[in-house]
Amino acid sequence: MPKKVDHEARRLEIAEALWRIASTRGLDGVSLRDVAAEADISLGRLQHYFRTKDEMLLFALRHINSLADQRIRERIGALAAGPGSGTGTDTGTGPSAESEAEAGQGPPPRAVLRECLMGMLPLDEKSRVGTLVGAAYFARAIHDERLREEAREGIPRLAEFLASLLRSARERGETAGGRALDPYTEAMLLISLVDGLTAYTLLGVQTGEEAAQRLDAHLDRLFADR
Amino acid sequence: MPKKVDHEARRLEIAEALWRIASTRGLDGVSLRDVAAEADISLGRLQHYFRTKDEMLLFALRHINSLADQRIRERIGALAAGPGSGTGTDTGTGPSAESEAEAGQGPPPRAVLRECLMGMLPLDEKSRVGTLVGAAYFARAIHDERLREEAREGIPRLAEFLASLLRSARERGETAGGRALDPYTEAMLLISLVDGLTAYTLLGVQTGEEAAQRLDAHLDRLFADR
Repeated sequence: MPKKVDHEARRLEIAEALWRIASTRGLDGVSLRDVAAEADISLGRLQHYFRTKDEMLLFALRHINSLADQRIRERIGALAAGPGSGTGTDTGTGPSAESEAEAGQGPPPRAVLRECLMGMLPLDEKSRVGTLVGAAYFARAIHDERLREEAREGIPRLAEFLASLLRSARERGETAGGRALDPYTEAMLLISLVDGLTAYTLLGVQTGEEAAQRLDAHLDRLFADR
Repeated sequence: MPKKVDHEARRLEIAEALWRIASTRGLDGVSLRDVAAEADISLGRLQHYFRTKDEMLLFALRHINSLADQRIRERIGALAAGPGSGTGTDTGTGPSAESEAEAGQGPPPRAVLRECLMGMLPLDEKSRVGTLVGAAYFARAIHDERLREEAREGIPRLAEFLASLLRSARERGETAGGRALDPYTEAMLLISLVDGLTAYTLLGVQTGEEAAQRLDAHLDRLFADR
């Protein structure tokens, strides 16, 4: 195996050890030594792959987010039928979703939007681990400029993508309130809603099923004029 | 000063030391020793007031929540005008809000609801500290049955109170969607929304002002039929 690939594979193994800790007892007071023990390697070896705790945290966060992205793309891909399928799965780019919708190809924007949002809730074991890791990061990021920067860049990008889906739906006359709907405001409300629904699911205030029903109730209202 | 009052005063001083830590660097890896140092007392003395870290965390959480409640009650009290004022400020009891609204006394349910929700956002220094402490607890509570229990009891109580305000507003014909509005679902959506808006404000993704505007956009929709 080429050296670079091996290096990356090792970093992934360490990231997975970190997730196991984050999802079972949180990142509260977790040291590089704890992660090395969980990954079954020496502290020196871990430091060969990650020089600092921050570097390791950031790598592990980006990787778990990209896995979540991939799962959501697959779910959107599964929605698509006919020749347009597959191309509608690029959740990273707003414009392509818009032009697809205009061309009448691919799944309807509401369905894509719903898959994205449901994919962010802790509804199965994989997404549950992802949200547990996310929650552990959140608590750190509040006091960590570098991690906060990650959110400050990522969230507006996600909001812009969701807004583009809402804009497409509005063009198609599928949203409630007609022209009055402000896509970016609604996108930020949706992201915040999912975030809070996730928190109260992780705390056991509601079940995942109840969280999903509540999200659907909100979507029904957003798309009521259909 | 009677011994019991002194005991309580000391516990409050320690709780405040804990909040200072929670709001500046989070509760990540914070020990009883750290809190004792921040409170400028010995570890032995701290343990005289709190035997365990959990006991201290729970006391401090309940106290900061009761301060937030009090601030919200004062804001609601300030809304009220005329002879009915003051009695509409009991945010802990749903039924009283409902009977008030039926009697046409006190501030309108929408205004009370808005004050409650805005009071939960980090819009000034006091509420900012409160939400920072809350965020630090959230990360711990996910992995701590005792703290989770606190949320499992408190959130449905808050949701029930907000639902009673929505029910009152619906009776008065002030909500959108007529009879179709489900007060408890909307209450849980509102709590989740505020939670997420708080998180993204603390992360610096949006300003407090933007969070408040987004919350108002959602409330405008809930009460659109007015």
